[in-house]
Amino acid sequence: MKLVCSQSDLNTNLSLVSRAVPSRPTHPVLSNVLVQAETETQRVLLTAFDLSLGIQTSFAAEVTTGGEITIPAKLLNDIVSRLPDGEITLEEIASETESPEGNEGLVVTLTTTSGRYEMRGMETDEFPPLPRVEEGMALCLPVEALMEGLRGSLFATSSDETKQVLTGVHLKMEQVGENDHTPLLEFAATDGHRLAVVQTVLGTEEEAENDQAQMPSEEDSSESELNSTALKSLDLTLPARALRELEKMLGMQGAGETIALQFEQGQIVFQGGEHRLTSRTLEGQYPAYDKLIPNQFQRQITIERRGLLSSLERIAVLADQKNNIVKFTIDSVNQQLELSVEAQDVGSGRESMSAEISGESLEIAFNVKYLADGLKALPTPDIQIQINEADTPVILTPLGGLKMTYLIMPVQLRN
Amino acid sequence: MKLVCSQSDLNTNLSLVSRAVPSRPTHPVLSNVLVQAETETQRVLLTAFDLSLGIQTSFAAEVTTGGEITIPAKLLNDIVSRLPDGEITLEEIASETESPEGNEGLVVTLTTTSGRYEMRGMETDEFPPLPRVEEGMALCLPVEALMEGLRGSLFATSSDETKQVLTGVHLKMEQVGENDHTPLLEFAATDGHRLAVVQTVLGTEEEAENDQAQMPSEEDSSESELNSTALKSLDLTLPARALRELEKMLGMQGAGETIALQFEQGQIVFQGGEHRLTSRTLEGQYPAYDKLIPNQFQRQITIERRGLLSSLERIAVLADQKNNIVKFTIDSVNQQLELSVEAQDVGSGRESMSAEISGESLEIAFNVKYLADGLKALPTPDIQIQINEADTPVILTPLGGLKMTYLIMPVQLRN
Repeated sequence: MKLVCSQSDLNTNLSLVSRAVPSRPTHPVLSNVLVQAETETQRVLLTAFDLSLGIQTSFAAEVTTGGEITIPAKLLNDIVSRLPDGEITLEEIASETESPEGNEGLVVTLTTTSGRYEMRGMETDEFPPLPRVEEGMALCLPVEALMEGLRGSLFATSSDETKQVLTGVHLKMEQVGENDHTPLLEFAATDGHRLAVVQTVLGTEEEAENDQAQMPSEEDSSESELNSTALKSLDLTLPARALRELEKMLGMQGAGETIALQFEQGQIVFQGGEHRLTSRTLEGQYPAYDKLIPNQFQRQITIERRGLLSSLERIAVLADQKNNIVKFTIDSVNQQLELSVEAQDVGSGRESMSAEISGESLEIAFNVKYLADGLKALPTPDIQIQINEADTPVILTPLGGLKMTYLIMPVQLRN
Repeated sequence: MKLVCSQSDLNTNLSLVSRAVPSRPTHPVLSNVLVQAETETQRVLLTAFDLSLGIQTSFAAEVTTGGEITIPAKLLNDIVSRLPDGEITLEEIASETESPEGNEGLVVTLTTTSGRYEMRGMETDEFPPLPRVEEGMALCLPVEALMEGLRGSLFATSSDETKQVLTGVHLKMEQVGENDHTPLLEFAATDGHRLAVVQTVLGTEEEAENDQAQMPSEEDSSESELNSTALKSLDLTLPARALRELEKMLGMQGAGETIALQFEQGQIVFQGGEHRLTSRTLEGQYPAYDKLIPNQFQRQITIERRGLLSSLERIAVLADQKNNIVKFTIDSVNQQLELSVEAQDVGSGRESMSAEISGESLEIAFNVKYLADGLKALPTPDIQIQINEADTPVILTPLGGLKMTYLIMPVQLRN
């Protein structure tokens, strides 16, 4: 294998795939990145895979000799990221010494104008192949819709690994009826304390079919072209870790572009431009969250989101000294909302702001963190808070724009 | 006490003094900031003190009722820093409840347009007074000279608290002779592995005397005016922690300004503008570092600093896998410097660059971190590396500009 490429191409693509390199690999080869150079296409393919999350990218290079090898990902990334912009030559050479296992070692050299590095590689046959979804069904998603869905749900996932499906985001697309031309993709996340649900519009079916015709095809083979049947419904849970990487990958796509999604039992593949991300789905029944969201509310507050968040963050300083609970005093007569906290032996605080309030006055309390998380994630300048009683679920929704629901349970106030 | 001030003034000054609030106070009152409001001067004085480092600042405010109180520093700072720009009213009020100790509690209210906070304060008589140096000698230092000295020495101090004086920077000013009109202040720091020495010019004695006449005087009393005798020599070690805060304080002074330094056995006071910083000096004899620096060298390399640092940082990726040692191959015939590293079982690397080399060729090795630290701290585009043999001290100096010496010991190479 021998190839010449630019430092910036190699650096950008290495940084991206490196995120799928496990910090504690179960097998040595998993800490390596798979480098595949093709003379025909004059392209290089980089792959990293931790057996659950896989990332693959490709970029143009001057490939003199085709071939493939795996190289320690961190070492290569650390060197390449410190190089100035310019040409880099990667070449597999005959090893002068034997590897520690007594096998003939594979050695890769990296050459620049000022320096030369040698790194021990490993055979590619030990590198597990990235899952392919050949029989699976495909769907084309606008980058913006995916971004909105992830931004509005990922933060509400559980970080407790023992909570299984709650560490992921649930994706659901209902079977689209014949007369219904606006399919919706729903993102839901809950850690048991709060719930975030985002519905994004995928565009009309016709648009989706047109997109599918222009779907990016793979460089290296035709077998994986997305010629599978169009996906009509979806119901799966994806690990937050993979989706956070997908979010970064989406950031590298242009606005207005689409991402192809392929799904087969237990495995999902996202492909956008030159980037491909694969992930295992999380097993287990996702909670029936729909039932938690009340249909009717007795009280409604319309309020400026940033103002409320700023007040809450100041109140949080004192709430932090106590039990992290903030009290809302909803005064419908004066159209005023007061936030207050009492931290005995430390101090107290209150903030008031005007709001558009319908329904009767009420006192209700919330956990500061769960409330603040929702206020940060809601995307619009104004929001609505809908309440029944001081002990029933409360929902926050953006006013206009995205269809998002954030549900929190109030905290019982002891008087 | 009652005062009205701007959020930005209170926030800036609180952030500064808060750095002297101990994280684990030996007495509860030390976690508080002392607030003193004066009607006569219409100024507020803030003080924090951990019994070693003390910081005091003052700013203008509308003081309706003079008085003083101590307020929990972190709580006050956290609330004030989250407030939008605007007016803040601080007021001591009669407490409604008793403090946990059963004493009548002190309560301070903080009021803004949108909110009101109450915090429990403490009596000021428990707050230890900031050390004053009334009999001590004074010296005026240009802000730039102090900055240069700190920047070139602080990084080389030891972070190991058991190493006593080595955790500080040694300041030395020799007795100035009658015919010598350019007094030098020397900053030295060593952790036992490397040594950094900076000499800064303080300007002529006449300039210094003029500066002294314009030295800032305190607002609150005339007793501490810097009317003490001018300091003619100096020999003390100051804790790195206090000097790092001094560096931040200097950053808030304008260019061309001066800092007044007062010293009395065991205690030093820096005063600049509205800011005052006091610190204990470190006890113990500072090593006689002058003797370590050779007077003559057999080899000299003149080289571009950033280029050498970049190469070293790439080599460091591989050195990090092994023993953190980089080998320099000095080739005086080809006027080339080669950096190399061999990390067995991982790989190897080498970087070469042209350099102006005098003296014979040589192989010599260094600890990567100590070399990189020095290259980062040297302030000029080109530097000189002066060497005798592969096992004797090596010094790095900037080419032009500041007078700085960075000394490192080579590492023995086993072949």
